[in-house]
Amino acid sequence: MVGAIAVAFIEPIAAGSGIPQIKCYLNGVKIPRVVRLKTLVVKVFGVICSVAGGLAVGKEGPMIHSGAVVAAGVSQGRSTSLKKDFKMFEYFRRDTEKRDFVSAGAAAGVSAAFGAPVGGVLFSLEEGASFWNQMLTWRIFFASMVSSFTLNFFLSIYHNKAGELSSPGLINFGRFDSDTVQYNLYEIPLFIIMGALGGMFGALFNLLNNWLTIFRIRYVHRPCLQVMEAMLVAAVTATVSFTMIYFSNDCQPLGPDHTEEYPLQLFCADGEYNSMATAFFNTPERSVRSLFHNPPGTYNPVTLGVFTLAYFLLAVWTYGLTVSAGVFIPSLLIGAAWGRLFGILLSVIASSQSIWADPGKYALMGAAAQLGGIVRMTLSLTVILVEATGNVTYGFPIMLVLMTAKIVGDYFVEGLYDLHIKLQSVPFLHWEAPATSHWLTAREVMSSPVTCFNRVEKVGMIVDVLSNTSTNHNGFPVVTHTTGHDEPGKICGLILRSQLIVLLKHKVFVERASSRLIQRKLQLKDFRDAYPRFPPIQSIHVSQDERECMMDLTEFMNPTPYTVPQETSLPRVFKLFRALGLRHLVVVDNENRVVGLVTRKDLARYHMGKDGLEELHLAQM
Amino acid sequence: MVGAIAVAFIEPIAAGSGIPQIKCYLNGVKIPRVVRLKTLVVKVFGVICSVAGGLAVGKEGPMIHSGAVVAAGVSQGRSTSLKKDFKMFEYFRRDTEKRDFVSAGAAAGVSAAFGAPVGGVLFSLEEGASFWNQMLTWRIFFASMVSSFTLNFFLSIYHNKAGELSSPGLINFGRFDSDTVQYNLYEIPLFIIMGALGGMFGALFNLLNNWLTIFRIRYVHRPCLQVMEAMLVAAVTATVSFTMIYFSNDCQPLGPDHTEEYPLQLFCADGEYNSMATAFFNTPERSVRSLFHNPPGTYNPVTLGVFTLAYFLLAVWTYGLTVSAGVFIPSLLIGAAWGRLFGILLSVIASSQSIWADPGKYALMGAAAQLGGIVRMTLSLTVILVEATGNVTYGFPIMLVLMTAKIVGDYFVEGLYDLHIKLQSVPFLHWEAPATSHWLTAREVMSSPVTCFNRVEKVGMIVDVLSNTSTNHNGFPVVTHTTGHDEPGKICGLILRSQLIVLLKHKVFVERASSRLIQRKLQLKDFRDAYPRFPPIQSIHVSQDERECMMDLTEFMNPTPYTVPQETSLPRVFKLFRALGLRHLVVVDNENRVVGLVTRKDLARYHMGKDGLEELHLAQM
Repeated sequence: MVGAIAVAFIEPIAAGSGIPQIKCYLNGVKIPRVVRLKTLVVKVFGVICSVAGGLAVGKEGPMIHSGAVVAAGVSQGRSTSLKKDFKMFEYFRRDTEKRDFVSAGAAAGVSAAFGAPVGGVLFSLEEGASFWNQMLTWRIFFASMVSSFTLNFFLSIYHNKAGELSSPGLINFGRFDSDTVQYNLYEIPLFIIMGALGGMFGALFNLLNNWLTIFRIRYVHRPCLQVMEAMLVAAVTATVSFTMIYFSNDCQPLGPDHTEEYPLQLFCADGEYNSMATAFFNTPERSVRSLFHNPPGTYNPVTLGVFTLAYFLLAVWTYGLTVSAGVFIPSLLIGAAWGRLFGILLSVIASSQSIWADPGKYALMGAAAQLGGIVRMTLSLTVILVEATGNVTYGFPIMLVLMTAKIVGDYFVEGLYDLHIKLQSVPFLHWEAPATSHWLTAREVMSSPVTCFNRVEKVGMIVDVLSNTSTNHNGFPVVTHTTGHDEPGKICGLILRSQLIVLLKHKVFVERASSRLIQRKLQLKDFRDAYPRFPPIQSIHVSQDERECMMDLTEFMNPTPYTVPQETSLPRVFKLFRALGLRHLVVVDNENRVVGLVTRKDLARYHMGKDGLEELHLAQM
Repeated sequence: MVGAIAVAFIEPIAAGSGIPQIKCYLNGVKIPRVVRLKTLVVKVFGVICSVAGGLAVGKEGPMIHSGAVVAAGVSQGRSTSLKKDFKMFEYFRRDTEKRDFVSAGAAAGVSAAFGAPVGGVLFSLEEGASFWNQMLTWRIFFASMVSSFTLNFFLSIYHNKAGELSSPGLINFGRFDSDTVQYNLYEIPLFIIMGALGGMFGALFNLLNNWLTIFRIRYVHRPCLQVMEAMLVAAVTATVSFTMIYFSNDCQPLGPDHTEEYPLQLFCADGEYNSMATAFFNTPERSVRSLFHNPPGTYNPVTLGVFTLAYFLLAVWTYGLTVSAGVFIPSLLIGAAWGRLFGILLSVIASSQSIWADPGKYALMGAAAQLGGIVRMTLSLTVILVEATGNVTYGFPIMLVLMTAKIVGDYFVEGLYDLHIKLQSVPFLHWEAPATSHWLTAREVMSSPVTCFNRVEKVGMIVDVLSNTSTNHNGFPVVTHTTGHDEPGKICGLILRSQLIVLLKHKVFVERASSRLIQRKLQLKDFRDAYPRFPPIQSIHVSQDERECMMDLTEFMNPTPYTVPQETSLPRVFKLFRALGLRHLVVVDNENRVVGLVTRKDLARYHMGKDGLEELHLAQM
């Protein structure tokens, strides 16, 4: 309840895992408040509450989001929330630089969460970066390594072995012993079957969760309702757990070689512990570990089956609640449970407890399949799982499982994060242009007519355009002087809304069109100081006299913006946007006259649907 | 001698490790014959000879090159050398597609060589790819995994344990036991010192090898001289080895727990083995492994010191010989030797054989430092070493060591591969534009005047332009009809030399400018069939009558080539080239008239030298 109140009333953007938001941010979509200090505080506080409250959630997604916020904050050398400017890192007060820091922060978060520095780098690249830059990647890797090292160092103090650096990650899947980790050629088809199962269960998970999210968007949008739903889920989770532990008769003898740290007797006889309670009455991380490593025979198949079903439904219901919560660990737990069940059934069929049907191995594969089926990550997830288990031998089967899960899952429905991004209607650009878009040209995609400015423009005109809410573009082409509005002018530059606002705020006006500006010059610093919260146009007062002044844009505009001719095909425009990280692309005719403007939103509208190319409705943002 | 003869007389491009050539190829530089079948055969044969001949070489670099050649070949579905066309994969007969295959092949090569699939992917990305494409990366990863798996499978048969898949790579550095692998906080400064040492030794290596290579380019360019040099090196290597073994008195007792598979008695007493011979009289891979894993006290410090010095000089002399040979393993061996020496000296200083001064650990760090100091790879090398040792705990110190080695080494001289690329004078584009190039604009960089064609052009004119060796551009802007040659025309497309040659070959002519082509249409297939060995213009016979015909380029040209205005700054042009993988960029004035053409060579000319920006002299290629 406390966690849900904090999220619902103080900072709703802190809800969920934060990974869809970070994905959007790295894609270039500006989501308000996603990397603010307040979000970080609420997120960290909220996730402590939801994990401690016993919900079916993990803390790994929020940790990735937190890493990103910390990086975004540190890189700016100031906090606008705390109204404190340390006068450093001013060079980084730009969108592109800040985005690089956010990707490094997300990587560091993954690295700390799973002890997977390489996996963190690949996560950032797979989910975020579009232009592969060697230096940036190396820096991200460095950040990940330092993050893992720092965590390691503090954990070694916590475990009273200060200085002995051997526990790399916060969750530890435990070391698979080298002697038992081998797999055999004939197991590979089994792994592929598990991948397919994982893809189907994952698709089912996503579908149910998608319906639930649509329901929530429609009916559960008031904060107090959201808090009540969270409380309901918590109550049901607790009830289900206790009921199932109570009715379970899976009591295991507490032998001398039992591996549980805190075996729970509960309703079992003396000298025995309740196996269902090991799965339910633990942090999810520890449950996953015991499913991976407990010796064969520790779990009853019925226990595992019932647990899988119950936990699956609880996890579906929990993800998307107004609490800070990740989906990684619940997915792994569901998968580990049915994977172990699969392994047990196999060894029953093979009618021998032979070494290859080690249920722990199948629990690992099941976990990979389920997680892959839900989030559909492949490369980074393989590496994360390999690093988290500390063993490279399983690399190939994990990859096979994840790939199968992705292929099977994609057949039914998109990945969980993509579904949530889609429900937010943001102009998210995918990796490739839609397949059948080759016949579309820039002319059909662009917004037209486009508002242009002259090199020397009247202040009143600029204020009017910026105040006009219907033309909410962020970039305006600057053209050579035109006589009428019927004929477009030749392009000579591009100026951003934020630049114009800073110019208006500092009143960089000239009296007549011919006179040059002799007042104080604007510095680059003035633009950086205003970043990232440029004042709205309404807050800038321009008097009637000033409206008649002129503003010379020549020295502030970008004199060589990227342009394309009207006939350029959509895939080519798309490639320019993705490869160069553009936000605006000016479309010109063969006389270099401005005829339109392509923005991210124009591109994101086109989407491959079931019936070919579809146009999406996108939120105003 | 046999290996050197094969390389020198049959296919000189097969000399060396092949990594600089693959780097150039992936960068977009066309190096003739680098991915041909003949190169592969000579390379494989040559590397067997040079390793068997006892030279100070490794087989890992050639394996990467071989992987690349195999991938390039398979993707084409035919072999022009064998004159066999399987009529498949015709879609891949394009430069960009083939390059993707080559990067996957190189990654698969790394994966097989070191058992490092993730390292292979990162190697390909760090050395090759410029535009990060998720699908491509995932495919490369898949190729790496399959490569590692296949090798694993065949090795398991070779070791008579068919189906037990546990040996991932061809070289195996051996497993560092989990109990002894921890490192302590106070060891980190020591690792950094080792990194700095590695950077210095690496820079010395590169400097000496660079002088030697310049000497070779000047004086040893005749094949028979090259073969004689290779024979001389082989003779000296053998002599030095035997002399040193003979004069060494480092005899170790052959205890019950010795770890050598084939201990050599040589000139030692019975029941003892020669420690110097373990290092010299082995494959370099096995020597590295014994330096990593032999228990403390197996090597005499004097032995290690003398061995390091001798092997360092031999390796410097060997790399760049006209034999197929890699530098990875020799570097690792040199580094492992002085690293172990460092560890032994440390434990003498600490005056106790305490666990943290385990010489094997320092041998690993020394190997990383030396290799990093020579090749200056960072991210991929960290991952490769982590995967090859099968242990993630050393990730952080290995990264620190490699980073220090790179920083220290870069202070003195460039990496070995970059030096060799520079000596070949190819237009290699680095990741970023030179730092002080912001004041340069496209106007200053471009080649001008540029040869343009009209939309409908006289055949004679085209033949003349293509035959003219002084304008060896590969792309020609197509302009609207101009009256004189003094005023440039408006751009309306771009056509490639290879396209023109195919058009001429198929005689796609029209009699008069006004009549449209009604003969057989050219298919995409005709262009693909001609790829990649387009006939030279001299081989196409055009009669005097045909010279008077016209050729309509409209339907074959690229109608929307990328263009930039003259004022665009060099870094922006550079970014376009790198991000989009361009080869030609048309420079236009503000009327869209062609004023120049920027090619890779124009960009590669500008280079940061000691005195700021320098222009390089580039070979005609």
